[in-house]
Amino acid sequence: MVFEKFAGVMLPAIEDQLRGVILSSVSEENCRELAKMLCYHLGWEGDRAGPEAQGKRIRPLLVLLCSAASGSDWQQALPAAAAVELMHNFSLIHDDIQDQSLERRGRPTLWTKWGIAQAINAGDLMFTLANNSLFALKGGKNEAVIIRAIEILHQTSISLTKGQFLDLAYEKEKTIPLESYWPMIAGKTAALLAASCELGGVVAGIEPEKKKAFREFGYSLGLAFQVQDDWLGIWGDVSSTGKSNESDLVTGKKSLPVLYALNMHKAFSERWIKGNIEPIEVVDLARLLAFEGAETYTRETVDRLTREALQALERTDCNGEGMVALRELTSMLLTRVK
Amino acid sequence: MVFEKFAGVMLPAIEDQLRGVILSSVSEENCRELAKMLCYHLGWEGDRAGPEAQGKRIRPLLVLLCSAASGSDWQQALPAAAAVELMHNFSLIHDDIQDQSLERRGRPTLWTKWGIAQAINAGDLMFTLANNSLFALKGGKNEAVIIRAIEILHQTSISLTKGQFLDLAYEKEKTIPLESYWPMIAGKTAALLAASCELGGVVAGIEPEKKKAFREFGYSLGLAFQVQDDWLGIWGDVSSTGKSNESDLVTGKKSLPVLYALNMHKAFSERWIKGNIEPIEVVDLARLLAFEGAETYTRETVDRLTREALQALERTDCNGEGMVALRELTSMLLTRVK
Repeated sequence: MVFEKFAGVMLPAIEDQLRGVILSSVSEENCRELAKMLCYHLGWEGDRAGPEAQGKRIRPLLVLLCSAASGSDWQQALPAAAAVELMHNFSLIHDDIQDQSLERRGRPTLWTKWGIAQAINAGDLMFTLANNSLFALKGGKNEAVIIRAIEILHQTSISLTKGQFLDLAYEKEKTIPLESYWPMIAGKTAALLAASCELGGVVAGIEPEKKKAFREFGYSLGLAFQVQDDWLGIWGDVSSTGKSNESDLVTGKKSLPVLYALNMHKAFSERWIKGNIEPIEVVDLARLLAFEGAETYTRETVDRLTREALQALERTDCNGEGMVALRELTSMLLTRVK
Repeated sequence: MVFEKFAGVMLPAIEDQLRGVILSSVSEENCRELAKMLCYHLGWEGDRAGPEAQGKRIRPLLVLLCSAASGSDWQQALPAAAAVELMHNFSLIHDDIQDQSLERRGRPTLWTKWGIAQAINAGDLMFTLANNSLFALKGGKNEAVIIRAIEILHQTSISLTKGQFLDLAYEKEKTIPLESYWPMIAGKTAALLAASCELGGVVAGIEPEKKKAFREFGYSLGLAFQVQDDWLGIWGDVSSTGKSNESDLVTGKKSLPVLYALNMHKAFSERWIKGNIEPIEVVDLARLLAFEGAETYTRETVDRLTREALQALERTDCNGEGMVALRELTSMLLTRVK
């Protein structure tokens, strides 16, 4: 696959760039433990460090692939690739504290190892480094490009915090309207994928309509990615891994299929309102959800959003191997089973 | 006083600018509660809103006064003034969670009202808005100025998180060397005051040596300000307010006078190592600290740093009423009793 050819050279370059941002900014002897926290979270240090602990690096790959598809040298976009990955990881560090999650990518979360106070602060530093890493564009790009890139990243982090605010607020509600789902995942997921694709175009210096099309591609892809995640959270785990206790039904997440069924006010909704769902109920309730139409609705939504993403990608009017890789990545993300 | 004349017109302009940044970025109906959190923390809304709840706005005043002293129209520096105040308040929101502080400026802290999860997120948003508010410079300033301003703010927030890391790490130690104090307060306090003064000069477009002198002024002022705060935390409260339970001796803060005495290994140090200090001991221990030379050392340090700040200010080679106001502000900050 063309995607794998690109990923094979891009992924090591992304790790190098990330490592450079962190080690050049946190090099003091007395801050060694602080650097260690960031390196642990990024999957480079500590128990079970390695590719599994690093995550898929989807966002920086999108930056680089969109830059390559725009006909530019993708290596020039590495500072922007590092920026979006650091932004994503900052939000994960804080999310894990907010959700009291004990594990991330199969390892203890940062706050369980270093405490809440130091983990909040490490997240703040990761956030700053995300913004700051764009300054490495200074070597090759003009000031207007740098300012535009910073502006995109700022707008994205405003969207991220709004999406997170809604997510936390929804947790307190028994049920919410189906349409309330979209502004939440637009902020939490789609904003950063949209920014990643747009940044690839911005750094490549393409025309405004093309940048807009890349942005729309990332946005629809982000929505589709999240809805697919919601599908996996209910029907993926049970069938492929059998881990009922990790089902979104047990954690009480207001995912798209759940909201669909809650707004149908049928048997699933009646059960949900009664209180927490136990792991033993998960298989039956996943079937009930499907019976009430939530699985079909969810799959159709993924399909529609994927079509919209691919249509936007074609509107960029780009050609070549970068485009092939982006189409392949889209299809991989949306047919994944974990 | 000249300072009061400036503050009388600058303070309302700062509030307007801050309000504009927040309301223009968080205007959606579904994020009303999020905007309310920020407005509460900034002292505009909720119980006991008002000037007392807003804080002194020292940092934005420094930006505007340094800009005025540089011979520029201070109103053009308002976006930078808002940026440093938002940065300061972001760090306070997260500090209060990290220190589990229940009160701030006489009111319940953000996290006690909205919970830790929402407070972390509101702090993240305040952080982003700090960076983003610099874009309002775009109307009147060229791109190089904006990039330089953003870069200063990023470097400052890296310093802030390093200082905070050290502060949190020191809490776990019984004692630390006296010299470890300086990198902590350099990051936690001096970095943002240095940035405030430098930003005033950057926006005014003055020469590099003058900007450097403004920065050094802010840095020394920040160190002096913090050491004075440490003095107040032990000898100020007890004599002027009698609130022994709020003494830094009770909270166990590793302030400069405490570190001085710990490194003398005399009677105070022996008592400190035995465990938490009770409010009833505070008056006697404050006397013991003074007897062991810690108060003289602390006062002399404030005096030395103040002299260094004023010398740096003169190196800016600026004249006029802005300079008079800065000298007055310096003297007010360092002779304050609360």
